[in-house]
Amino acid sequence: MKRRFLMTPGPSPVPSFVRESLAQEIMHHRTSEFKEILKEAHAGLKSIFCTENPVLILSSSGTGAMEAAVTNLFSKGDKVLAIGGGKFGERWAEIAKVFALNVVEMNVEWGSAPDSDELTKILDENKDIKGVLTTLCETSTATVFDIEKIAKITNEKDILLVVDAISGLGQDVLLTDQWGVDVVVGGSQKGFMLPPGLGFISLSQRAQKAIETSDLPKYYFDLKKALKSHAKDDTPYTSAVSLIVGLATAIDAIKKEGLEVRWKKFSKMAEATREAAKALGLKLLSKRPSDSVTAIVSPENIKSSDIVKTLRGEYGLSIAGGQADLKDKIFRIAHMGWISQKDLIECFSLLEKVLAKLGYEFKQGVSVSRLEEVFHG
Amino acid sequence: MKRRFLMTPGPSPVPSFVRESLAQEIMHHRTSEFKEILKEAHAGLKSIFCTENPVLILSSSGTGAMEAAVTNLFSKGDKVLAIGGGKFGERWAEIAKVFALNVVEMNVEWGSAPDSDELTKILDENKDIKGVLTTLCETSTATVFDIEKIAKITNEKDILLVVDAISGLGQDVLLTDQWGVDVVVGGSQKGFMLPPGLGFISLSQRAQKAIETSDLPKYYFDLKKALKSHAKDDTPYTSAVSLIVGLATAIDAIKKEGLEVRWKKFSKMAEATREAAKALGLKLLSKRPSDSVTAIVSPENIKSSDIVKTLRGEYGLSIAGGQADLKDKIFRIAHMGWISQKDLIECFSLLEKVLAKLGYEFKQGVSVSRLEEVFHG
Repeated sequence: MKRRFLMTPGPSPVPSFVRESLAQEIMHHRTSEFKEILKEAHAGLKSIFCTENPVLILSSSGTGAMEAAVTNLFSKGDKVLAIGGGKFGERWAEIAKVFALNVVEMNVEWGSAPDSDELTKILDENKDIKGVLTTLCETSTATVFDIEKIAKITNEKDILLVVDAISGLGQDVLLTDQWGVDVVVGGSQKGFMLPPGLGFISLSQRAQKAIETSDLPKYYFDLKKALKSHAKDDTPYTSAVSLIVGLATAIDAIKKEGLEVRWKKFSKMAEATREAAKALGLKLLSKRPSDSVTAIVSPENIKSSDIVKTLRGEYGLSIAGGQADLKDKIFRIAHMGWISQKDLIECFSLLEKVLAKLGYEFKQGVSVSRLEEVFHG
Repeated sequence: MKRRFLMTPGPSPVPSFVRESLAQEIMHHRTSEFKEILKEAHAGLKSIFCTENPVLILSSSGTGAMEAAVTNLFSKGDKVLAIGGGKFGERWAEIAKVFALNVVEMNVEWGSAPDSDELTKILDENKDIKGVLTTLCETSTATVFDIEKIAKITNEKDILLVVDAISGLGQDVLLTDQWGVDVVVGGSQKGFMLPPGLGFISLSQRAQKAIETSDLPKYYFDLKKALKSHAKDDTPYTSAVSLIVGLATAIDAIKKEGLEVRWKKFSKMAEATREAAKALGLKLLSKRPSDSVTAIVSPENIKSSDIVKTLRGEYGLSIAGGQADLKDKIFRIAHMGWISQKDLIECFSLLEKVLAKLGYEFKQGVSVSRLEEVFHG
């Protein structure tokens, strides 16, 4: 019997009190009892998304909610800018191309955040760009983008700003209304401490107006229909009842702890993770590291996939490797949702054992001491 | 404290052993442990869908899987026939229109099943029809369509046959491969005894070929990608892990009882429900009643919504009312998934109390005796 624990950037661990709520007796989605729960979930999502605007719940993964943003805000041939810099930035471009938008791609080096001067330049050269598609935390590189600065630029130019915050939400600060972000996309399996299966999408007034005139085809992800249902605390098709009951439970816990308290907590955990990696003599990939996940460059001559495999195989601890060009080059440790300081200490303690086994040299215990220092010192 | 029980045609009750599996500790979707579960689920789905072809799992409601069928099998302007006869038949036409297909609609009176001569006539008059979209159990009218006969016609003419079996699967017999049905769409919250949140779709060799050339836009529901993942017992995006663990548990239980044993059980329950309604002097809506759900015409001067509301409000028992033109005219009792003979007896016992309260006259106990007779006599 091995203990199984996830420190992957999604799915992320689900606490027992949420798992128990998932196992409650099923209720019908068109009853006043369930409407009350949906109402609570809708209100809670607003507070976590830092918006007064509606946040819709979709029965899909976060990618489904990304597609919904594209097909509901834009029309055939509309020009949009997709900001790259990692696997999830590229996904925006892929989706927009599938739906026949005119996609301008801004190349950002993996591990870097987009440069605002370059962004301004691209937008000035393409006055007909209607929307910018970007990412809060680019999970593949563990990099947080400066959404506040990007929003300043898009708002000046009256361009829709759409942010994939699937992995960042709850850890990396995102002040949707205050910064003027039109659309924020989320998913259940990261900061929300839930299993995968729900996508979320917030819509500013400007975004709601754009939806009125969009002519791209959509049915299941028709947000005009979803907005109408939302106004009555309902969903267009059969709601994913059990996951929504879990959502209400998780939101309640997040609100009790406090969103800002949690932001500080994860910021400290991210700092400690970076310091612990450095104490081991390891480098960080990201130039603008996220508070949700940290990407550590694997020591020379050690494949990061071997670190991941050994941690999982011998100790039941799942962390993530690198994707695409970063395969075998980095490993990623998540600090999001239900993950705690104690989990990080355990993680580095096991990581040290694995690194030693794989032949990497360092002073034993150095990373755990460094974590403790950051946490308590 | 009121007992809460669902006899609605979705969501349908989830047994405690499935709910407990939903509450298991979360696992990562890219581990060998989860792959084993997906493998089991994939194999189990084949046996329940009565097919040797792949059955894909989508993180969506059944409607998402219906959209996937349309956007993956056809190309712009393709002519398809949507068979009406209820709310879900109409949904096929709606989806196909949104994606700019050339939709021929076959009108079927609500409560009736499509006439095969008329179907043949329409197909003969429209030689360019590429696909027929229809329904196994039309939930809104509790009518089962003769898919075997329809498949004979479409196979002769080499036309793709796509069947929404969301509410019927597991109760109404559907021999996918034997009858030659190309695509069968299912959902988790009916015969599978699971909460809502998963859609299923089986694809014949002919359907898989059609997918190769389809040019309609799709990303989240791209079945070419999903087929590739399926071959490796994987899913394209983050799998709805907890629901899939539940699915494997539920399928295991269904296989242990036996699909054919279950078909017989539900057929008997459906017969008993019809007999019990008749014993109360009530009429049935459907001319070809389903084994999954029964639609009973409300007594004159009693709105069916009052029956539904009273049953739910006073006894915690949810049944369904009528939809669209049938609102207030019929009520529907489901016998699917986890619903048992004992539940039907309880349901009619409470229904009698409610009917009496609403002023309907009948011999007390007559429906329950009739149920017992059919079950045991």
